[in-house]
Amino acid sequence: MDIHALIKPLLQKNDSKIVMYVGDGLGGLPQQPGGKTELEAASTPNLDKLAAEGVSGSSIPVAPGISPGSGPGHLGLFGFDPVEYLIGRGALEATGIGFELKEGDVAIRANFCTLDADGNIADRRAGRIPSEESFKVVEKLAAGISIPGTEVFVKPVKEHRFVVVFRGAGLVGNVADTDPQATGVPPLPAVARDDASQKTAKICDEFIAQAKKILADEPKANCCTLRGITGKPSIPTYEEVYGLKAAAIAVYPMYKGLAQLVGMDIIGDAQTIDEQMEVLKANWDKYDFFFIHFKYTDSTGEDGNFDAKVKRTEEYDSAVPKIMELGPDVVIATGDHSTPSMLASHSWHPVPTLLWAKNCRTDACQTFGEAECLHGGLGQFEAKHLMTLALANAGRLAKFGA
Amino acid sequence: MDIHALIKPLLQKNDSKIVMYVGDGLGGLPQQPGGKTELEAASTPNLDKLAAEGVSGSSIPVAPGISPGSGPGHLGLFGFDPVEYLIGRGALEATGIGFELKEGDVAIRANFCTLDADGNIADRRAGRIPSEESFKVVEKLAAGISIPGTEVFVKPVKEHRFVVVFRGAGLVGNVADTDPQATGVPPLPAVARDDASQKTAKICDEFIAQAKKILADEPKANCCTLRGITGKPSIPTYEEVYGLKAAAIAVYPMYKGLAQLVGMDIIGDAQTIDEQMEVLKANWDKYDFFFIHFKYTDSTGEDGNFDAKVKRTEEYDSAVPKIMELGPDVVIATGDHSTPSMLASHSWHPVPTLLWAKNCRTDACQTFGEAECLHGGLGQFEAKHLMTLALANAGRLAKFGA
Repeated sequence: MDIHALIKPLLQKNDSKIVMYVGDGLGGLPQQPGGKTELEAASTPNLDKLAAEGVSGSSIPVAPGISPGSGPGHLGLFGFDPVEYLIGRGALEATGIGFELKEGDVAIRANFCTLDADGNIADRRAGRIPSEESFKVVEKLAAGISIPGTEVFVKPVKEHRFVVVFRGAGLVGNVADTDPQATGVPPLPAVARDDASQKTAKICDEFIAQAKKILADEPKANCCTLRGITGKPSIPTYEEVYGLKAAAIAVYPMYKGLAQLVGMDIIGDAQTIDEQMEVLKANWDKYDFFFIHFKYTDSTGEDGNFDAKVKRTEEYDSAVPKIMELGPDVVIATGDHSTPSMLASHSWHPVPTLLWAKNCRTDACQTFGEAECLHGGLGQFEAKHLMTLALANAGRLAKFGA
Repeated sequence: MDIHALIKPLLQKNDSKIVMYVGDGLGGLPQQPGGKTELEAASTPNLDKLAAEGVSGSSIPVAPGISPGSGPGHLGLFGFDPVEYLIGRGALEATGIGFELKEGDVAIRANFCTLDADGNIADRRAGRIPSEESFKVVEKLAAGISIPGTEVFVKPVKEHRFVVVFRGAGLVGNVADTDPQATGVPPLPAVARDDASQKTAKICDEFIAQAKKILADEPKANCCTLRGITGKPSIPTYEEVYGLKAAAIAVYPMYKGLAQLVGMDIIGDAQTIDEQMEVLKANWDKYDFFFIHFKYTDSTGEDGNFDAKVKRTEEYDSAVPKIMELGPDVVIATGDHSTPSMLASHSWHPVPTLLWAKNCRTDACQTFGEAECLHGGLGQFEAKHLMTLALANAGRLAKFGA
């Protein structure tokens, strides 16, 4: 079912405010059988109150058993089928460092590598060159590259990884990787996968030829490979799909980038959750929809630190009253996936989710947690339906059919 | 997934009887936080008994967050994907007044309008002319219109609204509205959206030209516009899809019309639920499947009258023993959507649903209500799956695959 086509003719405007408050990797697992998850172990009086007044359930980010990355996890929450709307690796890498891709850009994940005297790859990751060294090499490369008619951006990521973006007329990003995934062989030439991408392939080869010269004296990073060569993903905006003027309040570049891909404005420059709430308050009158991203429920889970995730979950909870005092019409608290500290990684487990609104038909849930959500009124549902529920509860959807 | 294609080769006949007992707009909301819904507040001992013996769940009519009209709501219950099977506005309006559309008919929602001396629309609704006046104008129009080779039906609906149906060879209903949606401009000519609809467009223009002459002396309704120009929707019948001889026992024309669109026989002329049950009894041996429609759980909800909806829900309950004494094999009690009296409108909330049958695998639910249904054995499910469950419980579906 094409949800966006279904709701498009039903959209109606009003003054309602919707807040989607995402605790990244919110769902978890107990430390021992019969124990509590991080969210259940945390003291979350504010979320508990919302759960008691609202309706709870378990969100399935992509499909049962699928552990999503940040891209598909957030696209699902934003109401875009994460299997249909794919973000190419290059575009995701650029997005992840906060690079604002424009229509027609081609984004590339680049790796520094080491070539031997015969021009074969001796090390595909340039000896995992430390960031403090590689960042200088990136600067040198960026300063030296010059491709007439094409603007070239070269931006550092981490260690041997960096991002290249080509901007210019007639570029299409369907080009195969130049990384042969092996050592003892030379890098591959760039091969266009369709006619429209021929120009991009030529520019890739020209980029590598120049890079070889510029980097010739580098002991480790004397060449590079290009991977995940992709255009800006074609995703309609929140304004187009939902008729919502939407803003994102995030600390980390990746989440700002993902929000930007669906047309949200990135507002403020908050570094803490308190500062994020100040940005929310200051911009309350300017937008219909706010995406607020809290990172640390995920990063502590990724660290495998149960107690730290509990603490960070309490921090996530503590900001809720600052949202509520602004008088929102719909509040959603959820995660883009689970990150159980027992697994120290993203996982496939459904994500505890609550929706608070005046007419949401509440359920028997009295607290916010994985076990409680199992008997919530939202049941188990695919994340991509959350936005439709938000719009309905905000009074922004007319009846379908007569 | 194409459910109908899936079950077609599995269908097997037997003597079982299935009753789908629809309380229109059955689902509701509490009057205050923590309160009971209309269904929960009502005394429903008969439905409670069925819930205790049967299996309960929450039906999602179309998709999460979507508030359906009667058309999509019932198509879902009848097992037709309500997003795939769309009923055009003209066809629905004709259906709503009980007009029996035939294959090849073109149905139109028509509005009386007022033209000024220059031929521009002065009032798009002819001053919302009262029904007692407009019905006479409809009669005059119906008597005067004559289009050679095409049978023309002109039927009153309410106030300025009426229905026009063209019947004849070569008619296709893909024609744009002639209502310009503005005043101070003349009505639009009828424009075919495809070649096959050219003849229909010409007949529309001829109809309006004749209407202008016939209505020339009318003070308000001196012209009309044509909207929602559509053919009979192409929906397979219950016999074709389920191998069921099906009958509908409804009081209101709209629901008789919807049942007719899926090939049900409309039986009896009952005006009350007691009379509907007499019709059921009298026809028990003649059909495999009975759709019984109870309107007043919806109309009281639409009126915003909580207490009246509670009373009507009790009336809905009171007829259940008359169904059960006939010895049905499968009984489904549900609604086509929720109509909370607190919202005084159709809503997106899931609909309490129970299925009673000998082998249904019962659950812990002891009463019939929204909260109880949340932990029922049917879980949350899309309405379109109900008919498959009904067939399975009736022993009418063989194994899929070996």
